[in-house]
Amino acid sequence: MTYKLTYFNFTALGEPIRFLLSYLNIDFEDDRIEVEQWPSVKHTIPYGKVPLLEIDGKVLNQSTAICRYLAKKANLAGRDDWESLLIDIAVDNFQDFRLSIISYWYERNEESKAAKYATLVNETIPYNMERFENIVVENNGYFVNGNLSWADLFFVGILDYLKFRSEIDLLKDRPNLQALREKVLAVPKIKSWIEKRPSTVDIA
Amino acid sequence: MTYKLTYFNFTALGEPIRFLLSYLNIDFEDDRIEVEQWPSVKHTIPYGKVPLLEIDGKVLNQSTAICRYLAKKANLAGRDDWESLLIDIAVDNFQDFRLSIISYWYERNEESKAAKYATLVNETIPYNMERFENIVVENNGYFVNGNLSWADLFFVGILDYLKFRSEIDLLKDRPNLQALREKVLAVPKIKSWIEKRPSTVDIA
Repeated sequence: MTYKLTYFNFTALGEPIRFLLSYLNIDFEDDRIEVEQWPSVKHTIPYGKVPLLEIDGKVLNQSTAICRYLAKKANLAGRDDWESLLIDIAVDNFQDFRLSIISYWYERNEESKAAKYATLVNETIPYNMERFENIVVENNGYFVNGNLSWADLFFVGILDYLKFRSEIDLLKDRPNLQALREKVLAVPKIKSWIEKRPSTVDIA
Repeated sequence: MTYKLTYFNFTALGEPIRFLLSYLNIDFEDDRIEVEQWPSVKHTIPYGKVPLLEIDGKVLNQSTAICRYLAKKANLAGRDDWESLLIDIAVDNFQDFRLSIISYWYERNEESKAAKYATLVNETIPYNMERFENIVVENNGYFVNGNLSWADLFFVGILDYLKFRSEIDLLKDRPNLQALREKVLAVPKIKSWIEKRPSTVDIA
């Protein structure tokens, strides 16, 4: 089977997919679009959004759905329906958190942008990061039931980009999230990926 | 087991959950928060967001994750991992579409709001509705592989609210989506729910 991932030349929503493909030991074409190319590419792809994963030429969009599919193959998608539910909830909470950061970043009105940043710094980031820290404490070092799942890979995968866009050290004073990050990055297949992946502006 | 759904007193993200609970013939407490009550409720719940489903007192958030969990119990979540993937993609595409409408609706800056509405009416709505219509044509009357799935229930469940907020007849000139809607609303358990559900501003 052939796998081709199309995304921007940074981590963000592409990285959890790259983590999972690496974890599964799947060779994939890592197609990276430069920002200047984007306007000419955007109208040629489904819903005008990336990441896209092509499996044997079948074009799939939606990063969360793609990650869940790969995670099932990797036995990282929960041991039963209840555990899968808790993983899905965790990931969608990360996605909501990501959206609040992205919503500030893409805001064009300067006044609205400043207001959004204030809410982000004073409310959204501390609130969410404290919840995430507590969930990891309650779940013995992982997001769900004391086991590595794709929720952990997803969180660590998007973290650098969120830190880059918010310009905030999200893991400061969050020792359990720091430890989780180190555990995920020490998984051999992910460690190899990190060592060979291209350097990009969000992880420089 | 006891089920309690907490949401606003309209359809929107609560309705796909209500559809699935009804489809499963599960009795549930249908707790509806009035908009005036919301500020005092918001800070007491996880992530400050609804819907929430409590199952035997365990509090779950994230409507998509909740629907997927219920859909598995209803055998509406795909016959294999690939079909589940296609359903998940369809639902996340609906969620992105919903977000673009909601993003217009919640915009406070009048100039930005007018610009968002123009994009919605001229680009986002026709683009997405045409794609959705074509997907249903290609999949023999449903969103995935010619079979009823929770993608169909989710789409029909949120449709009234999207129409209400956008003030656009989303199914106009989309005969296949209209037919899908009628099929979903004719499913006996959903039909019974529709007949007994409270009348709210978005379905009046």
